[in-house]
Amino acid sequence: MHADAPAYAALERTFARLSALNGASGILGWDAQTQMPDGAAEGRADQVAVLRGLAHEILTGPAVADRLAEAGTEVLAPEQRANLAEMARSYRHAAAVPQDLVEASSRAVSRCEMTWRSARADSDFARLRPELAEVLRLQREIGAAKGAALGLAPYDALLDGYDPGMRRATIDPLFAELRAWLPGMIAAIRERQAAGVQPVPPEGPFPVETQRAVGLRLMEALGFDFARGRLDISLHPFCGGATDDVRITTRYDAGDYARALMGVLHETGHALYEQGRPTAWRHQPAGEARGMTLHESQSLIVEMQACRSEAFFDYLAPLLREAFGRSGPAWEAENLHRLATRVEPGFIRVDADEATYPAHILLRYELETALIAGDLAVADLPGAFNDGVRALLGLAVPNDRLGCLQDIHWPGGAWGYFPTYTLGALAAAQLFAAAKAAAPDLLPGLTRGDFAPLRDWLRAWVHARASLADTDTILAEATGRPLGTAAFRAHIEARYLG
Amino acid sequence: MHADAPAYAALERTFARLSALNGASGILGWDAQTQMPDGAAEGRADQVAVLRGLAHEILTGPAVADRLAEAGTEVLAPEQRANLAEMARSYRHAAAVPQDLVEASSRAVSRCEMTWRSARADSDFARLRPELAEVLRLQREIGAAKGAALGLAPYDALLDGYDPGMRRATIDPLFAELRAWLPGMIAAIRERQAAGVQPVPPEGPFPVETQRAVGLRLMEALGFDFARGRLDISLHPFCGGATDDVRITTRYDAGDYARALMGVLHETGHALYEQGRPTAWRHQPAGEARGMTLHESQSLIVEMQACRSEAFFDYLAPLLREAFGRSGPAWEAENLHRLATRVEPGFIRVDADEATYPAHILLRYELETALIAGDLAVADLPGAFNDGVRALLGLAVPNDRLGCLQDIHWPGGAWGYFPTYTLGALAAAQLFAAAKAAAPDLLPGLTRGDFAPLRDWLRAWVHARASLADTDTILAEATGRPLGTAAFRAHIEARYLG
Repeated sequence: MHADAPAYAALERTFARLSALNGASGILGWDAQTQMPDGAAEGRADQVAVLRGLAHEILTGPAVADRLAEAGTEVLAPEQRANLAEMARSYRHAAAVPQDLVEASSRAVSRCEMTWRSARADSDFARLRPELAEVLRLQREIGAAKGAALGLAPYDALLDGYDPGMRRATIDPLFAELRAWLPGMIAAIRERQAAGVQPVPPEGPFPVETQRAVGLRLMEALGFDFARGRLDISLHPFCGGATDDVRITTRYDAGDYARALMGVLHETGHALYEQGRPTAWRHQPAGEARGMTLHESQSLIVEMQACRSEAFFDYLAPLLREAFGRSGPAWEAENLHRLATRVEPGFIRVDADEATYPAHILLRYELETALIAGDLAVADLPGAFNDGVRALLGLAVPNDRLGCLQDIHWPGGAWGYFPTYTLGALAAAQLFAAAKAAAPDLLPGLTRGDFAPLRDWLRAWVHARASLADTDTILAEATGRPLGTAAFRAHIEARYLG
Repeated sequence: MHADAPAYAALERTFARLSALNGASGILGWDAQTQMPDGAAEGRADQVAVLRGLAHEILTGPAVADRLAEAGTEVLAPEQRANLAEMARSYRHAAAVPQDLVEASSRAVSRCEMTWRSARADSDFARLRPELAEVLRLQREIGAAKGAALGLAPYDALLDGYDPGMRRATIDPLFAELRAWLPGMIAAIRERQAAGVQPVPPEGPFPVETQRAVGLRLMEALGFDFARGRLDISLHPFCGGATDDVRITTRYDAGDYARALMGVLHETGHALYEQGRPTAWRHQPAGEARGMTLHESQSLIVEMQACRSEAFFDYLAPLLREAFGRSGPAWEAENLHRLATRVEPGFIRVDADEATYPAHILLRYELETALIAGDLAVADLPGAFNDGVRALLGLAVPNDRLGCLQDIHWPGGAWGYFPTYTLGALAAAQLFAAAKAAAPDLLPGLTRGDFAPLRDWLRAWVHARASLADTDTILAEATGRPLGTAAFRAHIEARYLG
């Protein structure tokens, strides 16, 4: 095929180089969070900026543009055509934004992230405000530039950078449905849990080495390939690294084993997606994970759908008792499962349970779309944020540290990212329901720590498809219908009100 | 100054980018030796190849060549002129070798290194021979190409890549002197040590965590800046990383604490040089370490000159007794010092003491100059190697694993590197003698673990000079004379025959 398609073949070579460059950036990013001494931060920022600058140069250079046009006229196999489409998408996103805007935004984000750390610590929104306004101004410019090139509204253009093909027109009705029934559902669950058996937290301390050993054992059970990945420690858990080198992190609290463990399970879900991408395409755009909705669905299928099921706690409880050398009522499967499925509105998004989490996202989505549209001023953000928390979660935000200063996304220039968390939760519920229907041994397997039925299904229907199809197609073929809220609602009802 | 020197200013920006790229490669190289899962090796090779290819492209692009010519006509401060000279040197080295030769050599080296690992394990030189011959053929081509561009003989051109300004014309008389007196000196030391008190090795095991704690404590005493560096574990100790991120490694043997400890001290010597480079020039060629002779001198000043002195063992012995919770005659300073200064010819270069080490280098220098000149065939290497070991060390090599297969340098394409080990030992002795003369509190300080007098002197006379002057100038200004063998001979005589 390549002999007849010289332009396409040349593009494959260029994108393989870009994949290597991005892999290098991924390892440097992992290192910065896990290994790097403090004094190296400035030099590391330079290194990553140079790598990203070179990748942008290569991607937007005339060689790529000309060959994309030529390759469009070449005879290609269907998968090559899908790859070419992804190449073109990457090119259009990159070429849409002038280099000086990329650099201005990158500098503004670096400054704003730095200020954010201290502003959050001191709960001082006023300190962040001018720099956040500058980041927003540049995001709006980027959204406008990408939107013009891609034929999209600015917010959709930003969103498309994280989740190709996702649009406000898809999100708005889904989120409207959630908004309609979620607050009532949360109230019903809270009432039910208040009236039911109260769970007892197991008493610590839980040695960090034991927590790590348990995490590694579960990663192995889940099918994480340690020849192509690692588990380390960082302040904020993440899944990073490079192709064939997938590195996840967690953080340990000697007083609470569940936080690190659930972090490991969540990130292992992301990692299985990365490790399950098709080998033949792993250095090409079509071999990349499809987008953040499907990525988050994979972490939540593991963490929330599989590993907070009653079935899984039949496996987990004795494993924990043995590992920590403990026993008693607090260590019974039923009690541990009750603890892991406790619903309680709180201020902090990353600490939220699966029922209240969407409320945090509905609010952020509403605010960031308004900010990008120019319908909300940065100065009015704290008030709007606090009003939203009161309306959606019934809580009075006492300070901005527990309010609009809690997340790095906005100062960090990740606008259009938030909705994918909840879209991922919807997709996870829908995919897990389909997997259970297709693999009757899935839930029984979990009682023995056997994740093979789930993993094999996900590998075939999601991981191996990578970016060879779009999110809609992957979801529709895997579950028989487009993304909706029904499966998520059914899941929440079954688990919490069943 | 920059306003009047636009070409020079543009070059500084380009070389700062190259410094960032090289830093990224340095961190990826460190990661490959210390963290990377096995399955990531191929992807990592691609990442590093792409980074190195991009660096070569940037360095040899027309923009650099044109600006070097222009900048030569601009008004520059003396340090800028030194920087420009280093830029030109980098450019000439890189531009001299055609890209296809660089890539052919890189591929041949990758293959040959891989084969070398198994050939060494099986002591099978025949298996390595064809690939080693190919690496040599390409090194000769590279030497010829660089030589033509630099006006140097091929071996000098290769040597200049590791140690700018170093020439066979400098090395040959120095090595001839060593060859004249070293074998007799070794014999005399052996006789003296055989007739003297025999040292008693302390009995293990020595817990790895304790070894690491001792290493960290000594690094701190030496002045290693942990805000800009780390200590880790790798199979072969090295000093790597990036500017402001200097990462050294060692490996631990629970039965022998001395090996890891001396590795830490050696690499800390390298690290102090890297960390002591002048801040204002740290992303420019003039701010880089001068070359391998001075680099090795810094590791050997710490490991061999300072940390095998009797003075240092007065500090080290009680520290070790306390750390390992041990006591007795084996743990007395005098005994430990005797152990650390034992001279005994052996087959393996990296295990050699400071008196026999130069013999290993004299042999390798003789052989690699002959191989590059075409005066020795690869097929005749094992025989020539074994003859040399017999002549210089009086040992009969039983197999090639203990002979010409022991080092990675030749399969790894590092031709012209070996002599710098012994040139470094000569420079270390000369610099240490000058430092002692200039700082009378240097040796007394070592008895208390106070390295400040030595460190301050090295920082001023070597580290801070970076590549702002050449090796000859730095050595002459620091020690009052050119590189010679006299200080090394005096050192060996004083320590072993005094």
